[in-house]
Amino acid sequence: MSDYFISPSERVRHNIFPGVDIFTAAGEQLMLSYVVFEPGAVVEEHSHPHEQMGLLLEGEMIFIIGGERRTLQPGDMWRIPGGVPHSAIACDNKVVALDVFHPVREDYR
Amino acid sequence: MSDYFISPSERVRHNIFPGVDIFTAAGEQLMLSYVVFEPGAVVEEHSHPHEQMGLLLEGEMIFIIGGERRTLQPGDMWRIPGGVPHSAIACDNKVVALDVFHPVREDYR
Repeated sequence: MSDYFISPSERVRHNIFPGVDIFTAAGEQLMLSYVVFEPGAVVEEHSHPHEQMGLLLEGEMIFIIGGERRTLQPGDMWRIPGGVPHSAIACDNKVVALDVFHPVREDYR
Repeated sequence: MSDYFISPSERVRHNIFPGVDIFTAAGEQLMLSYVVFEPGAVVEEHSHPHEQMGLLLEGEMIFIIGGERRTLQPGDMWRIPGGVPHSAIACDNKVVALDVFHPVREDYR
């Protein structure tokens, strides 16, 4: 176990919605969350005080942030200020994304 | 231009070392940096007060953090507390990674 390097097996898995698993790693004021959606899986609308940014890595998904709806392709990024409601739906494909939180989400450790 | 969504063409490009380009997007207290290395390109040892975490997306690279050296594969992550020296070398392949900084690196806006 290294202070600096995190292999995939050292990430912490949480099932956050049906068909949506996250694999997290915490730093001091940052948390990375590797997110895997089954086709059609949904992250229901929610909000949190943490700032969130992210990058779509694989697949296509619909993301709704603060009422603004987009269909995203790999390479697209998002930024969600603390407190802004957001939800996401995987299209007819597996979706993989990376989310980043500041500060660390204690519920995802 | 959306407050919430950033397409690849809206990211800001900087050439930070020979053969190393970054494509950044800033939030409030977070910055994403999509990094592309040509084969064999080097990020020389440096440090900064910002905390940094990241994920290797494509290719193989050697990363040295605080004197600890690892050869990383896609899916591997890193965390670098503020002030810790680090350097990276792309192996004989194109390397793509995502770095995250807190707070925003003003020099990368």
